[in-house]
Amino acid sequence: MDKIVRIDMGAEGGPKVSTGPLGDYAGFGGRGMTSAIVSKEVPPLCHPLGAKNKLVIAPGLLSGSVAAMSGRISVGCKSPLTGGIKESNSGGQPSQMLGRLGYAAIVLEGKPKDDTLYKVFINSDGVQITPDNSLKMLGNYDLVAKMNAAYGDKIACISIGQAGEQKLSGASIAFTDMEQRPTRHAGRGGVGAVMGAKGVKVIVVDDAGMSKRSPGNPEKFKEANKAFVAGLKKHPVTGEGLPAYGTNVLTNVLNEAGGYPTRNFSSGQFEGAAKISGEAQAEMENARGGEGSATHGCHKGCVIRCSGTFYDKNGNFLSKQVEYETVWSHGGNCGIDDLDAIAQLDRLDDDFGVDTIEMGATIGVAMEGGLANFGDAAAAINLVKEVGQGTPLGKILGSGAAVTGQVLGVERVPVVKKQALPAYDPRAVQGIGVTYATTTQGADHTAGYAVATNILGVGGSVDALKPEGQVELSRNLQIATAAIDATGMCLFIAFAILDQPDTFQSLVDVVGGFLGADMTADDVTELGKNILKMERDFNERAGFTNKDDRLPQFFKDEPLPPHNVTFGVTDEDLDQVFNF
Amino acid sequence: MDKIVRIDMGAEGGPKVSTGPLGDYAGFGGRGMTSAIVSKEVPPLCHPLGAKNKLVIAPGLLSGSVAAMSGRISVGCKSPLTGGIKESNSGGQPSQMLGRLGYAAIVLEGKPKDDTLYKVFINSDGVQITPDNSLKMLGNYDLVAKMNAAYGDKIACISIGQAGEQKLSGASIAFTDMEQRPTRHAGRGGVGAVMGAKGVKVIVVDDAGMSKRSPGNPEKFKEANKAFVAGLKKHPVTGEGLPAYGTNVLTNVLNEAGGYPTRNFSSGQFEGAAKISGEAQAEMENARGGEGSATHGCHKGCVIRCSGTFYDKNGNFLSKQVEYETVWSHGGNCGIDDLDAIAQLDRLDDDFGVDTIEMGATIGVAMEGGLANFGDAAAAINLVKEVGQGTPLGKILGSGAAVTGQVLGVERVPVVKKQALPAYDPRAVQGIGVTYATTTQGADHTAGYAVATNILGVGGSVDALKPEGQVELSRNLQIATAAIDATGMCLFIAFAILDQPDTFQSLVDVVGGFLGADMTADDVTELGKNILKMERDFNERAGFTNKDDRLPQFFKDEPLPPHNVTFGVTDEDLDQVFNF
Repeated sequence: MDKIVRIDMGAEGGPKVSTGPLGDYAGFGGRGMTSAIVSKEVPPLCHPLGAKNKLVIAPGLLSGSVAAMSGRISVGCKSPLTGGIKESNSGGQPSQMLGRLGYAAIVLEGKPKDDTLYKVFINSDGVQITPDNSLKMLGNYDLVAKMNAAYGDKIACISIGQAGEQKLSGASIAFTDMEQRPTRHAGRGGVGAVMGAKGVKVIVVDDAGMSKRSPGNPEKFKEANKAFVAGLKKHPVTGEGLPAYGTNVLTNVLNEAGGYPTRNFSSGQFEGAAKISGEAQAEMENARGGEGSATHGCHKGCVIRCSGTFYDKNGNFLSKQVEYETVWSHGGNCGIDDLDAIAQLDRLDDDFGVDTIEMGATIGVAMEGGLANFGDAAAAINLVKEVGQGTPLGKILGSGAAVTGQVLGVERVPVVKKQALPAYDPRAVQGIGVTYATTTQGADHTAGYAVATNILGVGGSVDALKPEGQVELSRNLQIATAAIDATGMCLFIAFAILDQPDTFQSLVDVVGGFLGADMTADDVTELGKNILKMERDFNERAGFTNKDDRLPQFFKDEPLPPHNVTFGVTDEDLDQVFNF
Repeated sequence: MDKIVRIDMGAEGGPKVSTGPLGDYAGFGGRGMTSAIVSKEVPPLCHPLGAKNKLVIAPGLLSGSVAAMSGRISVGCKSPLTGGIKESNSGGQPSQMLGRLGYAAIVLEGKPKDDTLYKVFINSDGVQITPDNSLKMLGNYDLVAKMNAAYGDKIACISIGQAGEQKLSGASIAFTDMEQRPTRHAGRGGVGAVMGAKGVKVIVVDDAGMSKRSPGNPEKFKEANKAFVAGLKKHPVTGEGLPAYGTNVLTNVLNEAGGYPTRNFSSGQFEGAAKISGEAQAEMENARGGEGSATHGCHKGCVIRCSGTFYDKNGNFLSKQVEYETVWSHGGNCGIDDLDAIAQLDRLDDDFGVDTIEMGATIGVAMEGGLANFGDAAAAINLVKEVGQGTPLGKILGSGAAVTGQVLGVERVPVVKKQALPAYDPRAVQGIGVTYATTTQGADHTAGYAVATNILGVGGSVDALKPEGQVELSRNLQIATAAIDATGMCLFIAFAILDQPDTFQSLVDVVGGFLGADMTADDVTELGKNILKMERDFNERAGFTNKDDRLPQFFKDEPLPPHNVTFGVTDEDLDQVFNF
């Protein structure tokens, strides 16, 4: 990973590829790389769809190595959804493959002269970009099938569907999984719209002939990695819960805790939760045969294996095993308790290339605005189909919850920095409320997953219903997360490293062993802080203030059943999250 | 004007009317009153359509008196369009009538319990509010006709059309003129959406039995008013240009100056300008008979008389004589050179209750986004009709240029603080660019009309194409304007008072004579500064920074033909506008 490839989409005579050394960006990876480039090179007041924005795709520091869990990839830009800096993170195969090909970042720059659509092909011979208007308005599934037909089934694809081509603020970028399916997404913040504005439909990656990246200190690395894997397998969440049921293991847990946002955040418990829980999903999948509930990784090198496959009633592939956030956003959040309908919605989202969290939250707002009744799964499916069809209504919905709320005149719109809240109500899980409010990313659970400590008892215990201790918790998690997001490690390792000091040390040693450097826990903290500072600085220059670090007023005014609690962390305390 | 009436729309058992003395707000009027109440009583981070926002309607300090030109009214709230404080100003009859009835402000508060639509009736007996769902989704014209049938033809109406009921961010509030037509609008900032969110369709005002308000110093007032009127009649703009052609006298002037924004701000000259100019309009109106080009005031007591009537090809009333801003927004800005089509668009805007500037700018953005071709008048009419029909596309367009640009993925979106730019390109009229960028209101020419000095040679001369001197010019005009907006005086008096020191002194004496106080020019300046400070303070608490005091990047990057000039005022200089 010693080079960065830049493609100037606005160059005279057509897109121009140039590959160069890391220069100032040596030592950066993943979120560190994307936020460094965006923060340094993108004018904070530029138009997100304009020539001056850049789309940066960066494997993690360890991607391409044999380090377990190191296959995450970061996508960065100025967000069309939030107007601030964005790092959107995905699994899938491309990160490991780009790492092996030696690319620390792909940077799409400039603005195309016309509406020609381009395809990028990256292999050991270099980077090629060619126009291909035959790809226009293909869904991600058809697109990947076409790429497989052309380039074989050992490739990985990074692509946009109809939503990205329409430059919708809810558009995602899809990353193919181990089965050549576009099921993994850098979902949040409208990164797909920026790829669409750059005129790039797909980046095909083929690492044939490349070998795994070698560690700087092979002995230390190998030993640490072994201990790290053992630690992950030992922890109940990463070793048992996630492999057994996938992320949807959380539905029953959050619902029982009264923190499961139901019908557009009007209640914390959903009467239909059991029907769409991970347990119900596993039972259904087992009954339908196929791989049943057997889980697998979203990329090679995963040992947690929280992914799976969803088969329809006839035993045919429909979508990936639906993630907790999606089961919630399209399920309980919309009053829908039908897993088959939810899986159809997931498939449509992946195919059109929209963020499932934003899309489900948007449908919830649309239901509150009277476009459909809560619980009407058929209506929800039709609404999402509008996005792919590019109708005016589809364009509204594909622009996310904030725009939809404004256009429909809805007051209860669950967004921070215009990005929709994920699947934990901040009134009943106050720590995640602090993260939603203050992260540089707009409401984002992955930016500092306080749910772990508030609800799951991981990394200590802080009462979910009370404001005390939440600021410190969120701060520490946000710092640690930024560092993890730089390594290419999956965030789910956090469960084990928070609870098991040995496993945390193993992680530090895996990184240090790979880089061939002495690393301490303090180095990890410093890395995280530096990334957050770059991001905060960008947002400040883009016009963000502490007034943007607030939850919508209704979380303070409307008590959430069943605990009848409001969000209690004060504004003054929120302003203390970034006190470093 | 010794009382304020407040209507709590969210009271238990239905809306509750309470009338009380001015209290802390004694001495405030117009924009001073609205900005004082909003700044003090509305939480800056509240949802604009929620219970905590307030809609304040306030006649000017002199409204209801015989002072010439004193019939303007201010509407204030937190804006659904900009998210900041809003004062939107209108002519028409209600201001004088409310003044005579003694109401310094009407304040709509709280949030209705359900979607019942209400009608308010104000006369010398007091204020009544009654539910009337038969008014739902009526256009302003049908609504006023219905009110005339019920209450006679001596009333005035303050109302919303379909756009306000839909709570669209581009919705206006209509004020009837002397002919009982809803042609005068508090257009900007979506104030109609706030009235819609309060569940009030119309406020009917009947001042039967009330007499004109008496001045504190009758002699001084009478003499000053006489001199003031003489000064207005003497000045070429207020005494000749505006009465002869209405505001549309500006089309040829701005087009010749190369500052006429054409086809969504892509050029500064429109080849079809002559066909839609005030001169062409007067000729057409004369040919069609009726009142022809004879102008009149929009309210009693007007001596400038820039209003008129537009008759269609068959000699039937179609709309008011279309204002310059509307002729531009629906005309040159969309490449349309057909006055009949423009008048139809004006009529639709007034009927649906949308801001003609925002609507025209939005259609321009939609045309750039490919929804119609520039110049296609029939398509423009159909697009605006969608707003009244409440289709998804109509809801997008009715939400304004910023939302439409985001939903359609358009980069060249001419907005500041999400409010559309009016009819002067800031590259060729750099002084108005400073006002657009820095006013508390979002892009608004009336907040500090530097066009006067840049283009019309009024109040001195500052080169329109250069940045030098523009900040001081805009600052002084913004201060003076805030004061004028507090008096209830029409802003068009500015032409005469800027050029003629005697007339300025007359104005000061009119105000002082009416209030029975010694007033100096310094008092006027202080009044203006204080209003601006209240507004800036609100916006700061709402999260605005100097990053919001910027024009869109394309005004700095794309040279405007024919002068091929970019906006040259630096960010540092913009930050000096509010140095007091």
